[in-house]
Amino acid sequence: MKVYAFGVDIGGTSVKIGLGRTSGWLFETRKIGTPPAPSPESFLAQIADVIKQRIQARGFRAADVLGIGVGVPGPVDAQGMVHGCANLGWGDVDVKAILEQHLQMPVQVGNDADVAALGEMWQGGGKGYSDLVMITLGTGVGGGVIVNQHIVPGRFGSAGEIGHLRVNSQETEPCGCGNYGCLEQYASATGIVRTARAMLKQHPELSSPLRENTLDAKAVCDAARTGDALARAVIDRSMGKLGEALAMISCVVDPEVYVIGGGVSAAADVLMQPLKQAYRQYAFPASKDTAFARATLGNQAGIIGGIKLIVSKESKEK
Amino acid sequence: MKVYAFGVDIGGTSVKIGLGRTSGWLFETRKIGTPPAPSPESFLAQIADVIKQRIQARGFRAADVLGIGVGVPGPVDAQGMVHGCANLGWGDVDVKAILEQHLQMPVQVGNDADVAALGEMWQGGGKGYSDLVMITLGTGVGGGVIVNQHIVPGRFGSAGEIGHLRVNSQETEPCGCGNYGCLEQYASATGIVRTARAMLKQHPELSSPLRENTLDAKAVCDAARTGDALARAVIDRSMGKLGEALAMISCVVDPEVYVIGGGVSAAADVLMQPLKQAYRQYAFPASKDTAFARATLGNQAGIIGGIKLIVSKESKEK
Repeated sequence: MKVYAFGVDIGGTSVKIGLGRTSGWLFETRKIGTPPAPSPESFLAQIADVIKQRIQARGFRAADVLGIGVGVPGPVDAQGMVHGCANLGWGDVDVKAILEQHLQMPVQVGNDADVAALGEMWQGGGKGYSDLVMITLGTGVGGGVIVNQHIVPGRFGSAGEIGHLRVNSQETEPCGCGNYGCLEQYASATGIVRTARAMLKQHPELSSPLRENTLDAKAVCDAARTGDALARAVIDRSMGKLGEALAMISCVVDPEVYVIGGGVSAAADVLMQPLKQAYRQYAFPASKDTAFARATLGNQAGIIGGIKLIVSKESKEK
Repeated sequence: MKVYAFGVDIGGTSVKIGLGRTSGWLFETRKIGTPPAPSPESFLAQIADVIKQRIQARGFRAADVLGIGVGVPGPVDAQGMVHGCANLGWGDVDVKAILEQHLQMPVQVGNDADVAALGEMWQGGGKGYSDLVMITLGTGVGGGVIVNQHIVPGRFGSAGEIGHLRVNSQETEPCGCGNYGCLEQYASATGIVRTARAMLKQHPELSSPLRENTLDAKAVCDAARTGDALARAVIDRSMGKLGEALAMISCVVDPEVYVIGGGVSAAADVLMQPLKQAYRQYAFPASKDTAFARATLGNQAGIIGGIKLIVSKESKEK
């Protein structure tokens, strides 16, 4: 019986390969470094070799393994075709076909943020829910949209690009994407720092520990925790923009829960209350009571989501 | 064989009852008036009577009819429970259970805008697509989100409430929902008139036929068609806000196509070009080439979508 599956999380600096039971229990994780600008074929062959080796080392037969679910750092369409991964220097790559040829078992591919959202739905902060939006607050703001337990990939792989929702029509600095006033410019780690810089400049009369120390998102959250007024105002502004964006997402897919993850969310104790308050202020009246949860799987969300990706696909095929 | 199905579109002034083949061919439509503040039980019994009568008149056996798909003017959750219809004066009503008891055949219920979107996907402007967002430009701005050929209802039935996406943080007049700066305040028929009034006042130096005649959305579109500069500026502003809103929707679900319907869309010849231009300006780079289409089913979208609703459900159950 096919009771095992692999989840693979391909990142810009490393690849995590997880082995677990199809019931969701992850019992082994391997990590390999990502070579600079890896050629898709040789890099995927290397990943396939690790998987083959693990199957052999565990004494599994091919018939024991359901397949492999893979998250990649780029847009993936509904057919599983990968359309460019900037961090890997890839153009269009048919990851599914290449890995299936090496491994002779079913492979499913998704965008890494989407796959992590699926993992959080299955075994993490979104457990018990079928419709959720995951928000990853890191260097940027990423997202994954799950409807009826399945990833919404989008026509161009851009579903869940919530970092690029427009939340400020007055912005004069461009976002990395070329537009102006994107959520990412306020609610990401860099966005929080940018907001702090602007407010420090705007209020020279206010003293703040933020003037003395290295200015990063953690410093802002730490200062807010100790009651620093300026740091609190920065958090209110950044989380205000995030709340406004989530209110808009509710007008589109109206999820059961927002799951908040990523490095910045380590400071959830100071972020969640202003976030929920802003959400309730801007939400459409019927949707004011959407649940909020913290992501709980950390950097294992991708491999656990990878396992779920192949489990869902294969149970659908039957 | 179950080759027939009914689609029912319950509105504030009338109920349309359509009978068609499960393949999508609608061959009969009946219309009955909606009594003021109808009691759910007696009103649904009346609808059931019409359906029974049509089955009898056509000489169908119960075994010939697959079931009934119903659109209602209010939020419907994933279980098909209707949570209040303002236009009908209804609170929570289990439309599915009541009709199933009367008719002894499967019933599916959805929000009217969602069901119309499903109809347009199946037989209308969105034919051939699986992921679409329909925008209905009428007195308000309604919407329906279809992912993988299925309606996204949302936790509180608010998915597709795109009229309440926030597109202007500077707005001082409240929207009907209580928030400020909702899309509906600019891009609906009333929003176009409101925008026109504001611009007429703002530019007293500009002459325009809009100053002389009855000011409604049609008058604005007609004046824009003849080249009136002020009317064109109104359309640019209203469709600019709609384009901005659709760009945000693409960051959430990234549909294949936007299908534009509703009374205002009769003037698509003057609306579509500024709409598409604004969309492309604000869209996330990967999603700039989303398709646009006009709705083609008019006020039959609801009954055709109703038939699709029950066809999809029953084919899924098998």
